[in-house]
Amino acid sequence: MMIMMKTDTGYEKRYYFGIDIGGTSVKAAVFDESDNTVGTYEFATDKEDNGSHILNDVADFVSSWMNENGADASVIGGIGIGVPGAVLDDGTVNGCVNLGWGVVNVKAELERLTGIRTVAGNDANVAALGEYAGYYAGLSSFFFVTLGTGVGGGLIMNGRPVCGINGAAAEIGHLPIVTDEDRMCTCGKKGCLEQAASATGIVHEALKRLNSASDSSAAVSSLQKYDKAALTAKDVFDEAKAGDIVAGSVIDRAAEYLGRGIACVACAVNPECIVIGGGMAAAGEYFLDKVRASYRANVFYPMKDTPIVKAELGNDAGVYGAAHLVMPSSNNERK
Amino acid sequence: MMIMMKTDTGYEKRYYFGIDIGGTSVKAAVFDESDNTVGTYEFATDKEDNGSHILNDVADFVSSWMNENGADASVIGGIGIGVPGAVLDDGTVNGCVNLGWGVVNVKAELERLTGIRTVAGNDANVAALGEYAGYYAGLSSFFFVTLGTGVGGGLIMNGRPVCGINGAAAEIGHLPIVTDEDRMCTCGKKGCLEQAASATGIVHEALKRLNSASDSSAAVSSLQKYDKAALTAKDVFDEAKAGDIVAGSVIDRAAEYLGRGIACVACAVNPECIVIGGGMAAAGEYFLDKVRASYRANVFYPMKDTPIVKAELGNDAGVYGAAHLVMPSSNNERK
Repeated sequence: MMIMMKTDTGYEKRYYFGIDIGGTSVKAAVFDESDNTVGTYEFATDKEDNGSHILNDVADFVSSWMNENGADASVIGGIGIGVPGAVLDDGTVNGCVNLGWGVVNVKAELERLTGIRTVAGNDANVAALGEYAGYYAGLSSFFFVTLGTGVGGGLIMNGRPVCGINGAAAEIGHLPIVTDEDRMCTCGKKGCLEQAASATGIVHEALKRLNSASDSSAAVSSLQKYDKAALTAKDVFDEAKAGDIVAGSVIDRAAEYLGRGIACVACAVNPECIVIGGGMAAAGEYFLDKVRASYRANVFYPMKDTPIVKAELGNDAGVYGAAHLVMPSSNNERK
Repeated sequence: MMIMMKTDTGYEKRYYFGIDIGGTSVKAAVFDESDNTVGTYEFATDKEDNGSHILNDVADFVSSWMNENGADASVIGGIGIGVPGAVLDDGTVNGCVNLGWGVVNVKAELERLTGIRTVAGNDANVAALGEYAGYYAGLSSFFFVTLGTGVGGGLIMNGRPVCGINGAAAEIGHLPIVTDEDRMCTCGKKGCLEQAASATGIVHEALKRLNSASDSSAAVSSLQKYDKAALTAKDVFDEAKAGDIVAGSVIDRAAEYLGRGIACVACAVNPECIVIGGGMAAAGEYFLDKVRASYRANVFYPMKDTPIVKAELGNDAGVYGAAHLVMPSSNNERK
């Protein structure tokens, strides 16, 4: 792939890297200044040696891309990067369990390795920015919930991600609102929202119900036909949609808590729109309708009509939002 | 009182009105451009005829003050006004139960009556701005909780109150987190934070415990000596501090829920500081220590050390914050 670095009018184009570091793979995309995707890329996350090779791999990718495309640093507008952990305003990550990281200043390290201006953000905040920039630009405030293995969130106000003083704003997954939980959360508390409303939580609750001797629905549940060790949240959704009582009550519980959790966030910031993304958003309107009903039942009445909608960008939100951390037009760069 | 409208250097001074409309009285203060208090005033809130005289009374006060002080509109920098209800960005109040108001555009109406630029805000948001401007200016984010008859809140980010799309941001009193509540809240839901953590909620819970036949502590509680119809939250605090078991458990419940509610807000915005004001803040460190313990037990660990402190300004926060809605130096004026 060879890219012309001069447009027809003689203007020099600029390119922006969006990097999304996940526990399994690193996704990357390059965008031009008109927000067009120039290319998308993916490579495995090397978690050996406490993840110490990851940022080197990112820098190597950037360098290779520039070499292959005849681009020098003068045409690179910046690198935006999302990581699965709390990120302070100066780019410091204070521990990323999924990557094996302790304290790492992602911005400083990647700037040292590449010589290119870098902005780092929490992955959910960055995905929120991607959804916002792609579909909701102009809203005064916007809350994004990502439902997957865990439950994360991102809050955009006035076009910028809100990070919080400890980099932990919008951590809706750890709202302390689940009152019927017996396990510890990965964070060390008990009763976090993600224990009920994540894919992991749904599977755990389904297995618990299936194993309950006192629940007469358990023995006849259609979930009994699945290999318990391989049960997924999608299985539970599928059986709930098909009318299974146990699966239905597990999904109802997840939706009830999620609606209540979103109502708590709304009480704090009263956003203009709430967007649900992540793998579980694939459950669609069946699930969203239950979440909306719980939200309306739990929220303070002036905000009962806040729209709750499905995310548009899917897996691309991460790289797109990351690039928007450094795109000047989106006015999202942190100081 | 006669005020010189010219300073020694020949500069024309400017004056700012801060108005705080409460259900019982209207408090007002005038500040000069250096933030000095020129005078403080108070008059009864006239709730006759659905509160339709209130803004006329405010306009009359402004006019009288200007006449008495030889001030014309050119030296008045603006009127900031706090009202006990949700206020939209354009100054519209969509119902104020305590004042008898339906939909009133406070800003437009007061500007029409006085000819002076006016900015309106929710009373708790305005008190938050007062605390912020007075003691915490420069913090990136700041959450204010006011504990009184109800529980209110104000969120300041980047020096400005966050109002929310429906004017209902920071309404911590209506977080849906109280799981052992049998009454309806004034908002129509059941289980709002203010049902447990307000002065009203504390009195109700104390009476409920005293009347409980199954509670062996009830008969010997020192609260039994009080006239039940006149019991106050202060009585409950006093007896709790003196070691009464019933009073202590009521206060513990209030603190537990309040700490959990603040943890929910922190999960959403991760503020730099949390400040507790309102009448109940007078209970002091005895209560705050319980709230802090609950907060630490319930909040996501990256923000467990967020300071929770007592407000400094007391009743003056309302008028001071209101004036800061229009003071240019505070950069808080809404568009």
